[in-house]
Amino acid sequence: MLDIKKLYEEDYIGKEVELSGWIRNHRKQKDFGFIDFYDGTCFKSIQVVYDTKLDNYEDVTKYHIGTSIKVVGKVIESPAKGQEFEVSATKIELLGDCPEDYPLQPKRHTREFFREIGYLRPRAALFQAVFRIRSLAAHAIHTYFQERGYVYVHTPLITANDGEGAGEMFNITTLDLNKLPLDKEGNIDYKRDFFGKKVGLTVTGQLEAETFAMAFKKVYTFGPTFRAENSNTKTHASEFWMIEPEIAFCDLEELMDIEEDMLKYIVSYVLDKAKTELEFLDKFVENGLIDKLTKLVNSKFTRIDHEEVIKILKEAKVKWEFAPEYGEDIAKEHEKYITEYFNGPVFIKNWPKDIKAFYMKANPDGKTVAAVDLEVPGAGELMGGSQREESYEKLINRMDELNMNKEELDWYINLRKFGTCVHSGFGMGFERLLIYLTGVDNIRDVIPYPRTPGNCDF
Amino acid sequence: MLDIKKLYEEDYIGKEVELSGWIRNHRKQKDFGFIDFYDGTCFKSIQVVYDTKLDNYEDVTKYHIGTSIKVVGKVIESPAKGQEFEVSATKIELLGDCPEDYPLQPKRHTREFFREIGYLRPRAALFQAVFRIRSLAAHAIHTYFQERGYVYVHTPLITANDGEGAGEMFNITTLDLNKLPLDKEGNIDYKRDFFGKKVGLTVTGQLEAETFAMAFKKVYTFGPTFRAENSNTKTHASEFWMIEPEIAFCDLEELMDIEEDMLKYIVSYVLDKAKTELEFLDKFVENGLIDKLTKLVNSKFTRIDHEEVIKILKEAKVKWEFAPEYGEDIAKEHEKYITEYFNGPVFIKNWPKDIKAFYMKANPDGKTVAAVDLEVPGAGELMGGSQREESYEKLINRMDELNMNKEELDWYINLRKFGTCVHSGFGMGFERLLIYLTGVDNIRDVIPYPRTPGNCDF
Repeated sequence: MLDIKKLYEEDYIGKEVELSGWIRNHRKQKDFGFIDFYDGTCFKSIQVVYDTKLDNYEDVTKYHIGTSIKVVGKVIESPAKGQEFEVSATKIELLGDCPEDYPLQPKRHTREFFREIGYLRPRAALFQAVFRIRSLAAHAIHTYFQERGYVYVHTPLITANDGEGAGEMFNITTLDLNKLPLDKEGNIDYKRDFFGKKVGLTVTGQLEAETFAMAFKKVYTFGPTFRAENSNTKTHASEFWMIEPEIAFCDLEELMDIEEDMLKYIVSYVLDKAKTELEFLDKFVENGLIDKLTKLVNSKFTRIDHEEVIKILKEAKVKWEFAPEYGEDIAKEHEKYITEYFNGPVFIKNWPKDIKAFYMKANPDGKTVAAVDLEVPGAGELMGGSQREESYEKLINRMDELNMNKEELDWYINLRKFGTCVHSGFGMGFERLLIYLTGVDNIRDVIPYPRTPGNCDF
Repeated sequence: MLDIKKLYEEDYIGKEVELSGWIRNHRKQKDFGFIDFYDGTCFKSIQVVYDTKLDNYEDVTKYHIGTSIKVVGKVIESPAKGQEFEVSATKIELLGDCPEDYPLQPKRHTREFFREIGYLRPRAALFQAVFRIRSLAAHAIHTYFQERGYVYVHTPLITANDGEGAGEMFNITTLDLNKLPLDKEGNIDYKRDFFGKKVGLTVTGQLEAETFAMAFKKVYTFGPTFRAENSNTKTHASEFWMIEPEIAFCDLEELMDIEEDMLKYIVSYVLDKAKTELEFLDKFVENGLIDKLTKLVNSKFTRIDHEEVIKILKEAKVKWEFAPEYGEDIAKEHEKYITEYFNGPVFIKNWPKDIKAFYMKANPDGKTVAAVDLEVPGAGELMGGSQREESYEKLINRMDELNMNKEELDWYINLRKFGTCVHSGFGMGFERLLIYLTGVDNIRDVIPYPRTPGNCDF
């Protein structure tokens, strides 16, 4: 079965073709009709023209939007404006009909309505663009790392570690909640659960990825991650995909090189492979999208210390909602200001240790850690990374300061005992990247079937 | 930092290099020493030779296996047999030491022991081979589908559907199990759980993938899947990765074309990119591995009806443990016999409907469905697929026969109402493929951190 995409890639003028797909739109005149016809293999549809010469002409005129049909016909140059060719049908066969009250009509639907018909929305132009870009961006990421010799690691989803200790894990169990087994002390006896202990869904694959970086030098993860956070915002989902590269013998400066190079690669890839989709998004979703992406590819990313950023923010003649402070995190308004200030992406590095994770490398100043966040114009924080603490003693001391349970992470700590080395890594939320790439501002609209508090449909 | 891999790809003889990595083995003579040195970027290590000219010669002689070091030196032609070049060190710097009782010693460890030190085993030769092949095979799969225009879909992991109704789902909750909320009837009130209903971990992404095939024509999933099955075998894990392609306007015959083509592509890709790893596995894990894989690429897959297979099995002069029967499933011994009988991979198609899933297309005979399993010599069943029932009425009737809840799958059923079409898809367990590709026979040894009943470490 020929893909419609092929018609746009090779010259089919004058050739007979057989196509299967769906009716996106249908205009009937007195003795002929036009079908806006697509099969999902490319963003563009193609115009099918038919007339009374068809045996089943009368039937065909009644086909509603959404109907699936097979078209046999000849590709001819198109007299219509804005299209090079069309298909003059010699045969149109009904494959699957569609009622007149089909929810997807050729008019503007709200995003909320699309979410309610989540199983149909991938057929709409907006989601044809978004989900093809999602697929292309995923492949760009794999290709970037594979071509550079990275090993793709599938870190586990079910885990007994609560990651960064944020307590935002979903619990997993096969126990019968109506008859929970109790131990002698009257506590739930997790020894009788499927894994013999309390487990949940991972919030990060980083720690396991580090064990692989200590074996393969350059690795990356790309898989689902979960957060049982009860927040209903445009940028939070309970299930999302993350990319977490981890590189041995790599310090913070080299890590920033990789982050910058990777991001430019992905954006270039999508600019190249999703031209039509981006043009549509530029027109209907975010004006200037293509310029924004092109500019990123050609920009030099700024690198600046957190302390310097606070200084700039304090000196700025801006009335802040949240006052910038040394030693503290920065707010969305600050992120926005600083990328505008430097007119491009900014790596903010060397963060106050108290607002960052336990595994980040302590700087000699005793106050900061070798962490780096990448702030991108129009996206905010797109990646977060750090050099990891490679010293056994320093890591142990930091975990003690934070009252962490060292026992359950003994394997992670032991990496510092058996041939430790300078190493670094970062995490990038895949959906955050997609929001940036597509201009679609709600995470629910870049995930096929989003999971958020109170929502788990399809 | 130069990758050791580069030394094997380009000519570095006579050049000064700087390398970082780990000591795999260390032999000391009176006035010089040999370090078997690797950095994980390729399967091969490289020999580093040093002598008393090093400032820290005495210290270096004491470095244990597992120590991470930086080596500066010149690449020279090697006088040693079996290697073309080695590095003559002018400087060796200690990065991270390693105690003498490092668990990974250059001797044969059991697979069970390796599992206990799961965070160190990727450093061992066997797992360097296995996990690099895992990464390469994953990329082969993405590349195969992307080059052919398929859209990669991230189907949800958390779901309220129990998939094929097998009741083997892990439950997910954020309820406090010590204070479970009850409704008026005294049942657990899942309305107060995170998603407002009872949810679990998916057993398949197929149903959601079908919704995307109805929009993009050709799609595939590649993600984790879960099974809360209490079985401790060499081929079962509770968390594993699956590939589930789904194609619109594709019947069972065309589906088999795709399965055969894809498998040959993956195997060819791995044969090409993991030559050294496969040679190692051929020598130490499965003699004849490379021949087996090469033969597959060059074979023509047989296609035969289930009924015919039973006939052949019945006529075979073999004392079966399980007697083959028309209308029933086949056992491992039958799978083995039939691939040997045809001396190659065999598609067994048109299975008795009662042993197959509800969504498979009913054949005109009223007894069988358009399902197909691919049996591969040395692997057994590697893929399972089917043409899907595209008729609304037939699907509804079959679900009623099986007493299924139609309400929770209304969206799936509705696909048959809105422009339905012939479509087909298959599933391939990624680890089953890896067992075949590597010769390693236990699923626990092809997953970075395997989850099985009672086991959830790291």
